[in-house]
Amino acid sequence: MTQARELPRNETGIATVKGILAQRFGPAFDEGRSMREQHGHTTTLIPNQPPDAVVFPGSEDDVREIVRVCADHSVPIIPFGAGTSLEGHVNAPAGGVSIDFREMKRVKAVHAEDMDVVVEPGITRKELNAELRATGLFFPIDPGADASLGGMAATRASGTNAVRYGTMKDNVLALRAVLPNGGVATTARRARKTSAGYDLTRLMVGSEGTLGIITELTLKLHGVPEAMSSAVCSFPTEEAACGAVIAAFQHGVPVARIELMDALAVEAVNAYSKLSLPVSPLLLLEFHGSAESVKEQAELFAEIAGDAGSTAFEWTADAEARTKLWQARHDGAWAISALRPEKKMIATDVCVPVSRLAEAVTRAREEAVRLDILSPIVGHVGDGNFHCTPLADPNDPEETARVDGYLRFLSELAIELDGTCTGEHGVGQGKMKYLDTELGPAALDAMRAIKSAIDPLNIFNPGKIIQ
Amino acid sequence: MTQARELPRNETGIATVKGILAQRFGPAFDEGRSMREQHGHTTTLIPNQPPDAVVFPGSEDDVREIVRVCADHSVPIIPFGAGTSLEGHVNAPAGGVSIDFREMKRVKAVHAEDMDVVVEPGITRKELNAELRATGLFFPIDPGADASLGGMAATRASGTNAVRYGTMKDNVLALRAVLPNGGVATTARRARKTSAGYDLTRLMVGSEGTLGIITELTLKLHGVPEAMSSAVCSFPTEEAACGAVIAAFQHGVPVARIELMDALAVEAVNAYSKLSLPVSPLLLLEFHGSAESVKEQAELFAEIAGDAGSTAFEWTADAEARTKLWQARHDGAWAISALRPEKKMIATDVCVPVSRLAEAVTRAREEAVRLDILSPIVGHVGDGNFHCTPLADPNDPEETARVDGYLRFLSELAIELDGTCTGEHGVGQGKMKYLDTELGPAALDAMRAIKSAIDPLNIFNPGKIIQ
Repeated sequence: MTQARELPRNETGIATVKGILAQRFGPAFDEGRSMREQHGHTTTLIPNQPPDAVVFPGSEDDVREIVRVCADHSVPIIPFGAGTSLEGHVNAPAGGVSIDFREMKRVKAVHAEDMDVVVEPGITRKELNAELRATGLFFPIDPGADASLGGMAATRASGTNAVRYGTMKDNVLALRAVLPNGGVATTARRARKTSAGYDLTRLMVGSEGTLGIITELTLKLHGVPEAMSSAVCSFPTEEAACGAVIAAFQHGVPVARIELMDALAVEAVNAYSKLSLPVSPLLLLEFHGSAESVKEQAELFAEIAGDAGSTAFEWTADAEARTKLWQARHDGAWAISALRPEKKMIATDVCVPVSRLAEAVTRAREEAVRLDILSPIVGHVGDGNFHCTPLADPNDPEETARVDGYLRFLSELAIELDGTCTGEHGVGQGKMKYLDTELGPAALDAMRAIKSAIDPLNIFNPGKIIQ
Repeated sequence: MTQARELPRNETGIATVKGILAQRFGPAFDEGRSMREQHGHTTTLIPNQPPDAVVFPGSEDDVREIVRVCADHSVPIIPFGAGTSLEGHVNAPAGGVSIDFREMKRVKAVHAEDMDVVVEPGITRKELNAELRATGLFFPIDPGADASLGGMAATRASGTNAVRYGTMKDNVLALRAVLPNGGVATTARRARKTSAGYDLTRLMVGSEGTLGIITELTLKLHGVPEAMSSAVCSFPTEEAACGAVIAAFQHGVPVARIELMDALAVEAVNAYSKLSLPVSPLLLLEFHGSAESVKEQAELFAEIAGDAGSTAFEWTADAEARTKLWQARHDGAWAISALRPEKKMIATDVCVPVSRLAEAVTRAREEAVRLDILSPIVGHVGDGNFHCTPLADPNDPEETARVDGYLRFLSELAIELDGTCTGEHGVGQGKMKYLDTELGPAALDAMRAIKSAIDPLNIFNPGKIIQ
């Protein structure tokens, strides 16, 4: 097991806070075991560390009150969105109170002319896009899971179409966050750009609940593209596929999504989604634009892929065929799990410069073979980000140890290739041990200085990102 | 005069530091009056506050040494790029040492496949683009002045084509910065995206030298577009012009630049650049893409502009005509100054949500008339950012006071309309007084906490952004 570390618990404080919050929040307070275990939910090798209680605030004022009570008694607070994070972000290694935002899902304002929206943090991306349906606008960031917007901001999420629309850091215009001292910081106003002081928006985005608890987000929206088309493109090797990706960006093809699957992932997806894709490295693409431009983009890409050695290229603007293909990609995690139903799939993510991607993927595959681990690879290759998904039997400590070693190998490999141990999942508990190698002591000291300055009692999601 | 405030000087420390640095840096150390005054350069109503000495480091190690010496004696350090900042950023209200980066202009690595470049901070954007010419890549951010990249990052600069390519916050992948404790922080590695801890890159970008001294930047590059075309489009009112801007973005026209000039600015540009543009509110546009797509974009925009009431539309893909037009726009500051050569042009910048832009521009114009101030307006209206450029006779205290009042009116107007007192010039000394109204005390307290945590002696560019 990678990180079972418990932190010291403030038992007296926790007991006092539970009493106060139970009385204050009544039915919106829960300390039942199963509720607590759901909120220490983790999808990795990291063990579940449940909080001592879960509170469901209905407003920013509720959040402030919880923070004040917890601060008065030095009790940890862990914000919780949809519980889809992957590195133990919602675990409670020192106990404390989980704040679940499921009651804070309002869309507070849609500014269609400005192409932005103001939301509460608990709304999920699918819920938000459903609410936006009539406007012709949408929120593009798509990490696969139907995560909450607050959680996506807190982990600096991205996903399949970041290559065109950016990540959460690019799509949060402003936010409000309750700080450990009980104040509520407005990080920016609604202007499209600003140079007014330190970029607190970007500091909060990706801080994983360790600096502030997000209570409102102002998000950039984008126009729903007039047309979309998809393409599938097979290659003899990952090198050839990555070569096509590099060439496409150099030619300025404005690809909206560009996903790599290795042969093993293709096999899994074929079996699960009843497809018959050629079993070799494959790029799955989506183009957004006018009807004419998506055709033009696909043709240009086909030519580039041919030059790079692609063996098959198919494209479609048909909505049904497109949806089926992308559904298969989104079901990739289920498909991979289904390869060995008795095992657990561990999703990890690393990101390297695109020029190093072929080497990274090849070495990742070779190491999995060497360690005798089944580990398909899928990736958002437009930005050099890829996921390895090793399968491990949780009841087999020897296999678990091999997978754990593989996870370490992958992070160290990415760092060696001038990349990062996490492109989009975040640090949580699982990746803390790599930050020093990745960024060095001066950057980590600066992060620690910021953390102590904002949260001197260390009550906001302790035991995450930095010690 | 707006902000003549001097801060307490540490005379003993300054004298000691000057002695040490003079001996260590020899000819790369200068304490002559004219050199010092150039480095307290300001283009506003804020008086010149020269540093006590100027040092020209040749390497990051030199910068670390200067920081160590200054930290040992609690002496301020003010980083200096090309000296084109506009809000007193390089003034030395407590004295101290200016670090001029003119000797640190190297391009350390071009990664064409990854479309990024690693540079020293002293290189200017024109110098960088000249070095990149053979690669087919370019760095797009264009604030008008030929600023240094370090300065552009420090002030979170943007400019005319931010609407397509983003601002400095979007185009700095990573940086190295010497911190007040002498450590050198690497904020990120070269991967295209990362979720590895606090976003120190974005914290440094826009921190105006108050948190770290940038010694290296890794910048995103973009492919030189295959084709460019320009268009000029006149409107009866600013409202009509702004309506066209909003509609264009809702239709997803990927405009690369979209600039507004009010009638007064058009008059100035006509006179200065010998053009005969219709004297009424005008949009100046640039489209980037394939030969076919720039034509398609221009046609679509012409249609949208017609619907919004445009009275004239002309477009050209001819390089010479295009260059002449944009040169005229870039010479706008000279053109406006030439309206009244005996006066000084004060450039200010505010930014509002695009839906409020017409109201903001109209009220800005009306207030200038009421105050009897000549103040043309030009703006990067795709993102709601506009510049008012009042002309004031520095020897006329009454007119100077009126212009000062006008600057205050503009910042307060932008904030009232849910915008910011600065979209791209930064806070420096000039805009400090508006931050509390714009962001509120909790955000400012958080900024102060971060500043004290990173720079407890307050030696990095003191008297800027926050008290």
